[in-house]
Amino acid sequence: SFLGFSVVSAADPLPSWNDGKTKQSVIAFVEKVTKEGSPEFVPADRRIATFDNDGTLWAEQPLYFQLIYAIDKVKEMAPQHPEWKKKEPFASIIRGDTGKALAGGKPALIQLLAATHSGMTGEEFQGSVRKWLATARHPVTNKLYTEMVYQPMLELLSYLRANGFKTFIVSGGGIDFLRAFAEDTYGIPPEQVVGSSLKARYEVRDGKPVIVKLPEVNLIDDKAGKPVGIYQHIGRRPIFAAGNSDGDFEMLQWTTAGGGPRFGLLVHHTDPKREWAYDRDSPIGRLDKALEAAPKEGWTVVDMKDDWKVIFPWGNR
Amino acid sequence: SFLGFSVVSAADPLPSWNDGKTKQSVIAFVEKVTKEGSPEFVPADRRIATFDNDGTLWAEQPLYFQLIYAIDKVKEMAPQHPEWKKKEPFASIIRGDTGKALAGGKPALIQLLAATHSGMTGEEFQGSVRKWLATARHPVTNKLYTEMVYQPMLELLSYLRANGFKTFIVSGGGIDFLRAFAEDTYGIPPEQVVGSSLKARYEVRDGKPVIVKLPEVNLIDDKAGKPVGIYQHIGRRPIFAAGNSDGDFEMLQWTTAGGGPRFGLLVHHTDPKREWAYDRDSPIGRLDKALEAAPKEGWTVVDMKDDWKVIFPWGNR
Ligand SMILES: [Ca+2]
Ligand SMILES: [Ca+2]
Repeated sequence: SFLGFSVVSAADPLPSWNDGKTKQSVIAFVEKVTKEGSPEFVPADRRIATFDNDGTLWAEQPLYFQLIYAIDKVKEMAPQHPEWKKKEPFASIIRGDTGKALAGGKPALIQLLAATHSGMTGEEFQGSVRKWLATARHPVTNKLYTEMVYQPMLELLSYLRANGFKTFIVSGGGIDFLRAFAEDTYGIPPEQVVGSSLKARYEVRDGKPVIVKLPEVNLIDDKAGKPVGIYQHIGRRPIFAAGNSDGDFEMLQWTTAGGGPRFGLLVHHTDPKREWAYDRDSPIGRLDKALEAAPKEGWTVVDMKDDWKVIFPWGNR
Repeated sequence: SFLGFSVVSAADPLPSWNDGKTKQSVIAFVEKVTKEGSPEFVPADRRIATFDNDGTLWAEQPLYFQLIYAIDKVKEMAPQHPEWKKKEPFASIIRGDTGKALAGGKPALIQLLAATHSGMTGEEFQGSVRKWLATARHPVTNKLYTEMVYQPMLELLSYLRANGFKTFIVSGGGIDFLRAFAEDTYGIPPEQVVGSSLKARYEVRDGKPVIVKLPEVNLIDDKAGKPVGIYQHIGRRPIFAAGNSDGDFEMLQWTTAGGGPRFGLLVHHTDPKREWAYDRDSPIGRLDKALEAAPKEGWTVVDMKDDWKVIFPWGNR
């Protein structure tokens, strides 16, 4: 190119993606559905794109960040709960033995979440999450958790929005937790965040109306719960869905089984040096069934090592 | 005015509203929150406006239209359900005695809704509603139900959107029923509709993924359920809310108790000639507690008879 820079790359909407089949398939899809008059044109109001969060938009190792929040919160709340010293999973967390706390499995997890995610108002909870996100540091990179986002995925979100897509998060994570940072971090407003949720109650406390988070599950927005969450919140089928684990299988299946052009994207964690490498055997972000299904279903698999020039906005770990 | 038309009225964003205190208060609010640099300026992403539907955006007499749909549906389904001839409330509906069917109260209503609103897929249900809306006629005006909308409220929705507001429906009516017409009728897309909902299940039927509506309540989006529905779906507090009955009390309370500029609007049905007149004693759209609270809470009450030049897009009944 003339004078040593490329006019094409200056206009590249996905500069952190390496040239190749993956990037080309994303761009070809967007160009096809936005080309007026073409048989595959999709009107802007139907350009719904849904993104998983953990492992798709931000990292999820060594533990889901929301779980790290809950653990930090237990430590912070411990002085007000002397009874926790003799009660699992709290006792192990207070002693600093996270492994033992989580060995209690789902019942332990539910106790942990009930203690740290309910009983307060929605505004109090979000305030607590925002405060944590402003200062807590990732145990491996020492970055803020909101810096642990994938630069190529931020570019993909912007690229889709620039082409008339409405972007949503559809995550197994807690809806209130996500809403505390999704707008600043991803440009996704609260009303475009779908997540797991607790039931809530409206009440007037000391003359002031509040929403109180109850210790009772409303929706588990994971696996078959994802299409249900999409149906309840969005009310129409996405034409584009991105995930990274078997928890996204049904969302991708539901999305790509619709008529007309559809796109399913799986982020495969293949880079042990710059991020982490894991799939079939990982307790976090297990990717097995969906990876197996991808070629047959026509889903595009992102190979993080080969397809992404850079992982995080600040570089690589 | 020169040549018999008014330049002012040509630019009037609410031409079907009579000049007066009500119209002025709406315009003053919108001008205030959109004026950059003013102390009451609200950034566009926080300009959330929520609207009740029945009796606020469209009529609700002589019966909620969704209930008329359910009754028509029972008649259509009756040949496949010979057992209904001996079972209330179906038997009375089939005989044409709606009054007796509805005398069964809430249990009768729940049976009616379960039979007509669940057991099919979401797409099948919406298809059925669309088909009904395309042909069914209002028993008094003989208009399509989607023609029974209030022209001044359509103008208000457009006016708010032109000023950067995001408009939502927050209705006690069924979310899937509303989503079948809200986009075409009000310009409100499915993802901005909040309503009462049933639980749903994702499953693969004959190799095809579907969402099945279950006969189990997920959310009753009425009274204290409205702020909860807003919290779960939208995730932030509106700055503008409009309703017409005591079912909207909590939504208006929640909305107007927030900090900064807030607007609560109540549509009062005061015109027996052009529409219907009812409030405290009406079984449908009962307006008592909220009307009492309006002056104290600073809510603006629309007097349909005095404040609206025209009721429906096609005129008045
Ligand atoms: Ca994930
Ligand atoms: Ca109403």
